[in-house]
Amino acid sequence: MAKLSTNMSHSFAGPVFQAFFGTANLTGNPMHIQTSFLFDLDGTLVDSVYQHVLAWMEALDAEGVELSVWRIHRKIGMSGGLFVDQFLRETGLTPTPELLNRLRERHAAAYNRNVHMVKPLPGSRELLAALSEAGIPWAIATSGRIETAKPNLDALGVDTAKNVVITRDMVQYAKPDPDLFLTAAERLGVPIDSCIVVGDSIWDMLAALRCRALGVGLLSGGYGQDELERSGAMRVYEDPKDLLKHLDEVGGRR
Amino acid sequence: MAKLSTNMSHSFAGPVFQAFFGTANLTGNPMHIQTSFLFDLDGTLVDSVYQHVLAWMEALDAEGVELSVWRIHRKIGMSGGLFVDQFLRETGLTPTPELLNRLRERHAAAYNRNVHMVKPLPGSRELLAALSEAGIPWAIATSGRIETAKPNLDALGVDTAKNVVITRDMVQYAKPDPDLFLTAAERLGVPIDSCIVVGDSIWDMLAALRCRALGVGLLSGGYGQDELERSGAMRVYEDPKDLLKHLDEVGGRR
Repeated sequence: MAKLSTNMSHSFAGPVFQAFFGTANLTGNPMHIQTSFLFDLDGTLVDSVYQHVLAWMEALDAEGVELSVWRIHRKIGMSGGLFVDQFLRETGLTPTPELLNRLRERHAAAYNRNVHMVKPLPGSRELLAALSEAGIPWAIATSGRIETAKPNLDALGVDTAKNVVITRDMVQYAKPDPDLFLTAAERLGVPIDSCIVVGDSIWDMLAALRCRALGVGLLSGGYGQDELERSGAMRVYEDPKDLLKHLDEVGGRR
Repeated sequence: MAKLSTNMSHSFAGPVFQAFFGTANLTGNPMHIQTSFLFDLDGTLVDSVYQHVLAWMEALDAEGVELSVWRIHRKIGMSGGLFVDQFLRETGLTPTPELLNRLRERHAAAYNRNVHMVKPLPGSRELLAALSEAGIPWAIATSGRIETAKPNLDALGVDTAKNVVITRDMVQYAKPDPDLFLTAAERLGVPIDSCIVVGDSIWDMLAALRCRALGVGLLSGGYGQDELERSGAMRVYEDPKDLLKHLDEVGGRR
C-alpha cells in the first residue's frame, strides 16, 4: 500500500472495502461480487496513442503552440478540451471556442492521414469475446468522439447497438472526471463500485478512483508501470493479451 | 542506492569511486575532476523520438512484422540493427542483409515525410552554448546515421568540423554497447570516467554504466523517470532546459 500513500491514502480504503463488502452483487449470493469491466479505447484496446500524439502536436504547432511531444503524450487520454486548455493557459493564449474548434479539426485531419496504421492491440478481440462468453458485463468508455471511435470499434467487432459504448459526446465532462465510467456502469445496470476500469493512462486511473471503481493499467499506451501504479492502478499488465492471461487476478472468473 | 540494487549493485561503486578519486583531471588540481558531457541526440537534444517510432512501425508493418507501437518506443535509441534483430527473432523471421536494408530504407522514407515536424528540444542550443562558454568539453554520440543526424545537427547549430559528433557509421557497435561514448571521449581527449552521458533512453544509461561514465536521464524521449533510474541514471531532468537550470548538480560548474 506504500506506493499509494502519496496521492490518495485516505480514499483508497473506500473502493477496496466496498468491492469486497459492498452492495455490488448480481449473482444472488450476498457474499460474492460480480465484477464488471469498463474499458478505455485508445491505447487500451486499440493501438492509436502515438498517432493521436503526433496529430495533436501538428494541430498545436499550426496554431503557434510549441510543445515537446512527450508533454502531449503525458496528457493524452484526458479530455481533449481540458488538455488543450491547460496547454493554452501555459503559453498565455486564450482558449476561444473558435481556436478550440480549429484545433479539433486540425487534429482530426492529421489523425485521419495516419489512421490506416491503427490496429486493435493484441488480444483485445479475444478479451472482449471471453468476457461475453463468461457472461461478465463489459462496456467501453472513451474520451474520444464517436467519429474517431467508430472505425476502431468496427475493427474490434464492437456493435454500438448491442454493446454499451460511451463516448465524449454523451457526457458533460470527460476524463479525469468519472462521468464516462459512471454512465457506462449505469447503462450496464451494475453498481460502479463493482467495476474494474481498464486503461492505459493515469487519467483513467484517477477517474476510476474518483468514482470508487478499481483501476487496472496497461502499458500499451506507452506510459511507464510506475506512473500507472502511482495513480492508483491495483495491477498493471502489458496489453489486452496479457490481461486476458491473468483475468482471474482482477475478478474475471470464468 | 536501493533503486540500483536490482541490476548492478556490484558495479555502481566503480564509476562513482572513479569519478571522485580517479584519474580524470584537466585542471592541474589533482583533487578536482573536470566533467565532460556526452550527449545522445534523438529525444535528448532533438524532439524526434515519436516520429522515429512511427516510422519504424510503418517500415516493420510493410514487411509483415506486426508490433505494438509502445514496444517499438521501448527499443528506440538502441542500435537500429540490434532492435530489428530482436523483433525479427521474436516473430521467427530471418534478418537477412536484404531485409535489414529494406527496413532501413523504409524507415528513412517514412521518417523524412515527417521530418519537418522535428525541432530542437527546449534549451538544447542554450545548454551547448553554456558548456562551450564555460570551457566544459562536450560531444554528441548518436545511434543514428549521419544522413538522419545532419538536419538535426544543423538545427542545433552544431558544426561537425568544429564539434565532436560520433555517429553510427563511425563505430562497430551502437548502444547499448559503449563504443559511441568511448569514441566521443577519446576524440575530446578526456578520460571516459570523467564523463556524464546525457540521454533519454535506458540504452544510453546502460551504455554509460558499461564504460564507467555516469548517466543523466531526460524525460523528453517519453520514457518514465522510474525506467531511467532503474537503468542507472544518477539524476533525471525533464529536458535540456531543465538540465541547464540544474547543471551544477552534475558537474557543470561554471
